[in-house]
Amino acid sequence: MKWKMSNEKKLLKHELLGYPRFIIYQQKELFRFTIDSMLLSGFIEVKDGVKSIVDLGTGNAVIPIYLTLKTDAEIYGVEIQKEVYDLGAKSVKENNLENQIKLFNEDIKNTPKLFKNKEFDIVTCNPPFFKYQASSKINKNDFLTIARHEVKITLEEIIKVSYELLKDKGSLYLIHRPERLVDIISLMREYKLEPKIVRFVYPNKEKNANHILIKGVKNANKGSLKLLKPLYIYDEDNKLTEEVLEIYNYGRD
Amino acid sequence: MKWKMSNEKKLLKHELLGYPRFIIYQQKELFRFTIDSMLLSGFIEVKDGVKSIVDLGTGNAVIPIYLTLKTDAEIYGVEIQKEVYDLGAKSVKENNLENQIKLFNEDIKNTPKLFKNKEFDIVTCNPPFFKYQASSKINKNDFLTIARHEVKITLEEIIKVSYELLKDKGSLYLIHRPERLVDIISLMREYKLEPKIVRFVYPNKEKNANHILIKGVKNANKGSLKLLKPLYIYDEDNKLTEEVLEIYNYGRD
Repeated sequence: MKWKMSNEKKLLKHELLGYPRFIIYQQKELFRFTIDSMLLSGFIEVKDGVKSIVDLGTGNAVIPIYLTLKTDAEIYGVEIQKEVYDLGAKSVKENNLENQIKLFNEDIKNTPKLFKNKEFDIVTCNPPFFKYQASSKINKNDFLTIARHEVKITLEEIIKVSYELLKDKGSLYLIHRPERLVDIISLMREYKLEPKIVRFVYPNKEKNANHILIKGVKNANKGSLKLLKPLYIYDEDNKLTEEVLEIYNYGRD
Repeated sequence: MKWKMSNEKKLLKHELLGYPRFIIYQQKELFRFTIDSMLLSGFIEVKDGVKSIVDLGTGNAVIPIYLTLKTDAEIYGVEIQKEVYDLGAKSVKENNLENQIKLFNEDIKNTPKLFKNKEFDIVTCNPPFFKYQASSKINKNDFLTIARHEVKITLEEIIKVSYELLKDKGSLYLIHRPERLVDIISLMREYKLEPKIVRFVYPNKEKNANHILIKGVKNANKGSLKLLKPLYIYDEDNKLTEEVLEIYNYGRD
């Protein structure tokens, strides 16, 4: 996938890995998507028959936009911050994806009510990674802080809401940090989203893992977890690996 | 490490990776140690100050024997099957390690009583990997079945006993299968043996993981899990990797 990232105000046209296929609006102070969203998008398997997907904390809608390459299902995105939601809405419009993607400027915690007549096949989320403590030296009104720290919502709340949004045997796809592996796995089992596939992401062959990709299935039998082979970001020459390039270039000729 | 494996009755002198440093008695129908015990032994970190270690389900005592290369601490081994325990006792004697290693022919479940005046720094265990169901087509009196299936003891019981045997901040080291990752992690947290280090073992670079190495610490704070780089068994030429050879050759000149 080739992405053009443009800064709304400065119209900075930084091109990632070549010429653009989608235009994604972002702004340094508000929100910029990272490789995490790409890795999660690449990890999500959308089988035939999937009718609806929701991305919680969608930021500038980069995951919903990516997923249009994998499916014709309806895709929803929920973003609590108005200014960030606006970037997402502009990106969806710019790429003419308004028929497939619907965005909501809403708190994730309100989504069971918002979507009370829907049952999703898939919930995706690239959540805030870091625990928030009252003593944390962060500005809790800061846009980036809200995207990165559990100020507005915790991991447990996201997992609980995901269970409510999913249909029976529907799938939750998450990306997170290894430090939180025990929390994620314990909470997913507690909320009956049994982990079924895990993949660890390593910066390169010499370093410890820095991300986890995990799929849980609602009300599935316990056990039978599959642990996929490692995903490396950089090769020995410090270049993006073939597999990461394939994720970025998904669906391209 | 170079191991000579000898069959007690047939005196089969199969040499693994060269000439022997230890002689380990085993018998096809009773018990033979596998690479799993080597991987677990290699994973165990024995810091200065460690005074006592216990290996639960010690089989032919290969883990205690290996650990004598890493420490002068006293090492205990517990094995429920008399015939298998006898192999272990012969191995310990053959290698003149009776001063450092004490073996008990005992049920793991009885160890909190057996060791009621002791607190261990480290508990190690290469447990039966497979769940036992009444419908399982296995002979539950068979020696190998008992070593591989949860006939005599379950994962939950092992974790519970380990907590009781350990001193505060003592470490449990386990090897297990990825399919049980969710069980292990949930149970360790439940029984206050917080997972702190995890390493996944892959047969080679193309395959999914087939083993998990995990260290939990008694009464430690939640979180801060470290996910080590993958451990591969075979390289591209289907030869044991350098790292596995280092585990086998630990401490050799």
